[in-house]
Amino acid sequence: MKVTILGCHSATPRENAHPTSQFLEMKGRHFLIDCGEGTQMQLRKYRLKFTKINHVFISHLHGDHFYGLIGFLSTLGILGRTKDLHVYGPKGLKEIITLQLRLTSSYNEYHIVFHELESKSSELIFEDEKVRVFTIPLKHRVYTNGFLFKEKIGDRKLNIKVVKQYKEIEVCDYQNLKNGKDFVLENGTVLVNETLTNAPTPPLSYAFCSDTKYKENITEIIKNIDLLYHESTFLEDRADLAKKTMHSTALEAAKIAKLAQVKKLIIGHYSSRYKDLSLFKKEAKTVFENVVLGEEGLSYEL
Amino acid sequence: MKVTILGCHSATPRENAHPTSQFLEMKGRHFLIDCGEGTQMQLRKYRLKFTKINHVFISHLHGDHFYGLIGFLSTLGILGRTKDLHVYGPKGLKEIITLQLRLTSSYNEYHIVFHELESKSSELIFEDEKVRVFTIPLKHRVYTNGFLFKEKIGDRKLNIKVVKQYKEIEVCDYQNLKNGKDFVLENGTVLVNETLTNAPTPPLSYAFCSDTKYKENITEIIKNIDLLYHESTFLEDRADLAKKTMHSTALEAAKIAKLAQVKKLIIGHYSSRYKDLSLFKKEAKTVFENVVLGEEGLSYEL
Repeated sequence: MKVTILGCHSATPRENAHPTSQFLEMKGRHFLIDCGEGTQMQLRKYRLKFTKINHVFISHLHGDHFYGLIGFLSTLGILGRTKDLHVYGPKGLKEIITLQLRLTSSYNEYHIVFHELESKSSELIFEDEKVRVFTIPLKHRVYTNGFLFKEKIGDRKLNIKVVKQYKEIEVCDYQNLKNGKDFVLENGTVLVNETLTNAPTPPLSYAFCSDTKYKENITEIIKNIDLLYHESTFLEDRADLAKKTMHSTALEAAKIAKLAQVKKLIIGHYSSRYKDLSLFKKEAKTVFENVVLGEEGLSYEL
Repeated sequence: MKVTILGCHSATPRENAHPTSQFLEMKGRHFLIDCGEGTQMQLRKYRLKFTKINHVFISHLHGDHFYGLIGFLSTLGILGRTKDLHVYGPKGLKEIITLQLRLTSSYNEYHIVFHELESKSSELIFEDEKVRVFTIPLKHRVYTNGFLFKEKIGDRKLNIKVVKQYKEIEVCDYQNLKNGKDFVLENGTVLVNETLTNAPTPPLSYAFCSDTKYKENITEIIKNIDLLYHESTFLEDRADLAKKTMHSTALEAAKIAKLAQVKKLIIGHYSSRYKDLSLFKKEAKTVFENVVLGEEGLSYEL
């Protein structure tokens, strides 16, 4: 699992201060999370395999989280994409994109499948054989979701040394063993699965939470996850502004991380009023030790 | 008069290959011409006074010429703009922008005045006391206009040494002289204006022509102008593609410049298939000497 931060600044974009977007690789899937203006340039800059993206998740309809989407989609069309692309986001996104594609006379060869979100409860919005994605209802000035990406538990791992000791176990039996089944020898002896296999690699999980005011009940959804990105637009010195604009402070992001007992926290979505970003990390560390300061181009791999 | 190229590459944007946008300063006015994705970052990068822009001109509804507009307009709102902003562009642009402002719950404090263009003939679309702007109907895959920016002829310049020799000429008479009037002395002697004033500074003119196939009759509109930007997406080696996609080659851009007898030509809107841009200049120079290769950040001042 690998997350790459393409932009982690709030509101008005500038050079080296791109708006929110992240590229997530999980079990061979490639997900784009939010898509502020300039995202397609950032994807190219960091040489990410953006044509492999099949699923785009948009948290909310504020410009710094989706104004780059139409350009990204158009570029995929120009590059000759034919495969379906799925876009998950608030109601209204489909209207914005389709109007522009129509008025620009874009004849995309590929189909954009919109999944418009309206629920205020967490819901499963994507599932395949290896990954599940759930919404995390957030609280901001407009309807907003975070997203929880969870690997499914994989196969048990064959203890091949032990397995090879039994001539009766053939290659065609391996998948049953990986699935956790015991093996019965011809003489009736039962080989308990745990003696033939080891536990699967623990599945990883990543949650993206932006934008939101401090919302304690999201910790039920993101309990014990491996990695959490939580917005921290302000420091506590401007807690008044955080409250007014429905954003979080670095301290609040850290509180969420602590309550949810996540393994690691990445912060971002910094207000441009702060010049020294290290203060965000310092503030968060006062309540949660394992903090990473989000930065453009930062790749975090587990 | 000063033109700054913010982007001069075609189709899909990448780092150091931004889509079309130009910032034009003329007689103290600040105009934005086209606004591809990332334009607001480029305006900041080159430290241009983008909050002074009151008029935006969009040539056509292809993404690489206007996908940055919604972000630019939103940023002006976030920065607290209250003054009207005028946007000139094809029919449809208003619908695209207003839908996004509505769905993002953007409460701009300023008013965006849309001037939707539909005419297929050149028309005067802006005029104040110092500048006029005309459309230049172009021929592309969608409805497209170039724009001609013309300074008005200014006041005649007082020959102050001569004027001061006549005690009867008072300061309150100066504007009449600047307007070209003769002065009659008390004794009836007529002082011919040309003896008291010099000709005004010649008014400058700039034309922006992108995107378009080779269209010879635009030379009537841009005859003898000081500076012409004309697209040159391809070289003659891909004249077939230029024809098919309704773009121009560098040679064709130069032919237009020569026919219109402009003083200088800037080329741009290069296809990403070409790595060595100097070939564009070389090709154009075979028919028109005074060519500048458009580049990001290039400022051209007259």
